[in-house]
Amino acid sequence: MRVYRGPSDLEDILNDSRIPHRLPDLEDIVEAQKRIAGVATRTPLVESPALSKRLRKEVYLKLECFQPIRVFKIRGAYNKISQVPDKNILAVSSGNHGLAVSYVGKLLGKKTTVILPEDAVQEKVNMVLEYGAEIVRYRGDVSKGWELARQMVKSTGATFVHPFNDPEVIAGQGTCGLEITEQLPDFDSVIIPVGGGGIISGIAIAVKSRKPSAKIFGVEPQAIPKLAAAMKAGRIVSLPVHSTAADGLIPPAVGDLTLEACVKHVSGVFTVTEEEIIAAMKLLIRDAHIFPEPSAAVSVAALLAGRETNGLGKRIVLVITGGNVSLNLLARNLST
Amino acid sequence: MRVYRGPSDLEDILNDSRIPHRLPDLEDIVEAQKRIAGVATRTPLVESPALSKRLRKEVYLKLECFQPIRVFKIRGAYNKISQVPDKNILAVSSGNHGLAVSYVGKLLGKKTTVILPEDAVQEKVNMVLEYGAEIVRYRGDVSKGWELARQMVKSTGATFVHPFNDPEVIAGQGTCGLEITEQLPDFDSVIIPVGGGGIISGIAIAVKSRKPSAKIFGVEPQAIPKLAAAMKAGRIVSLPVHSTAADGLIPPAVGDLTLEACVKHVSGVFTVTEEEIIAAMKLLIRDAHIFPEPSAAVSVAALLAGRETNGLGKRIVLVITGGNVSLNLLARNLST
Repeated sequence: MRVYRGPSDLEDILNDSRIPHRLPDLEDIVEAQKRIAGVATRTPLVESPALSKRLRKEVYLKLECFQPIRVFKIRGAYNKISQVPDKNILAVSSGNHGLAVSYVGKLLGKKTTVILPEDAVQEKVNMVLEYGAEIVRYRGDVSKGWELARQMVKSTGATFVHPFNDPEVIAGQGTCGLEITEQLPDFDSVIIPVGGGGIISGIAIAVKSRKPSAKIFGVEPQAIPKLAAAMKAGRIVSLPVHSTAADGLIPPAVGDLTLEACVKHVSGVFTVTEEEIIAAMKLLIRDAHIFPEPSAAVSVAALLAGRETNGLGKRIVLVITGGNVSLNLLARNLST
Repeated sequence: MRVYRGPSDLEDILNDSRIPHRLPDLEDIVEAQKRIAGVATRTPLVESPALSKRLRKEVYLKLECFQPIRVFKIRGAYNKISQVPDKNILAVSSGNHGLAVSYVGKLLGKKTTVILPEDAVQEKVNMVLEYGAEIVRYRGDVSKGWELARQMVKSTGATFVHPFNDPEVIAGQGTCGLEITEQLPDFDSVIIPVGGGGIISGIAIAVKSRKPSAKIFGVEPQAIPKLAAAMKAGRIVSLPVHSTAADGLIPPAVGDLTLEACVKHVSGVFTVTEEEIIAAMKLLIRDAHIFPEPSAAVSVAALLAGRETNGLGKRIVLVITGGNVSLNLLARNLST
């Protein structure tokens, strides 16, 4: 079976020649913030007194689940696609990136195609369809999806919108970090879920530029700890994809840009178990009164179960990345 | 039993002598918008393609359930309380107003007391406690709560924050209407849930000032159709309070200010059944992918079940007022 080995594997379909392949800086993120105003929401940043008490920290939640499409990915997708001259765009996604691309594509009058796995969360598939994108499904490992993307980009010439390893996507996600620095004058650390590393990279660049003393931490499911592996090895490591409730965090590898940002800015990476992810989701529902998807709950999972968290400091921002939760999963966990 | 007969009943505790007892105008609402910036969220206004298709309208949702406290009442509470010089504030509420007052009270360093019914949704009670307010519970009809409020205001001298019949509260809720006119250049009507009439009054004043052709409609549960009754009678009518899943819409009467605004600006009032409210809640969860509380779902309920809706026009904004739903209620309805 072909294994996806990071973005170098995809060089031939990164066909957007407008932009140099380098990390964005603070200025790029400030530009992105102007661009996405009125499309992406300046989401609330609120303390959760119940979580603060329970976790014996000052716990603030950055509620990206309150974006119009209930996930942060609208930020990067709009910053990218609003600058793409091509009418045809194509994305490969486990769900949320595809949803963002189809939503933004509809706003901007693009012809959008989204490649999704057969086992994508049904609610996410429905939303992609609602916004008028054409869907192509594949069976098997995510590398199959990338292979399909390569073939389709070559045959159609559509502009490929990478889910994370793209300077304009990273700059867009970074606007979430800018907002945190604007909304909370003082904080010690930010904890961010890691899929391919797009949002942690963007937030890290924004936060470290504005507030160098703050620490950035990543969290990934034990099923696919690709950022921890890559930071340890000092290079992109492609892992086998094991099943996880955190369906948004399944890329088998980070990208070269996101690895560069994480090596530079990230103080540590937590890995969390499936049980901790579900427990964190329940905690957020019952104590913080929001409905996160499992991928978004990993930020809280990192603080559970007596893990050593002194390095995080006292005042912690948890990025709750999205709320597109499977209703079956939710029903199962509300009734227990 | 003493029956609450509208705000004239409470004249003796409306002890905020700073402000004249008159409806706010557009200018007051614009001022309120500046005041609440950075505290209340400019919530998303999004089309729901699934609802548009199903209801054969262009259906837009104004997602007040995405406020930091998951309900619009933060707007009015902050606009009011940030102008109150007194350190002690007191509110009577079925839950959401109390939550807003305790959240804002904590932000502004006030000493806050909230009077709640014994059967308030537990999740709302917990949140009021989390934000550090003192809670006083009462058993029985809401008029008991008002009576308690009267006694406590007289004995403590705290400033009473009315849940709806207050010029500064109405101006604050009106900012939601301003945002609608800014976010959507053209629309035919806005449908708004009615409790005591605070948010429909504020939105009506803002929308009718900015876009006179747009029509404003209210929705209330069949259990307590107090606005419809008052508009028909041309005066405040105090109704018996029957049980309803829409726990945020239980005031037995509108106020004199809110009635004045509604008589002037509201084109019609729908009443919806308990079955329609629950069906609408499920529809919003499954098709629009959000988690509204029953009181917020009445806007959608009005469009269900073949009710005559031609007068609404083609492009409709539904205000989804809040998302503080009982988890038991949610679990029951997700699993069926």
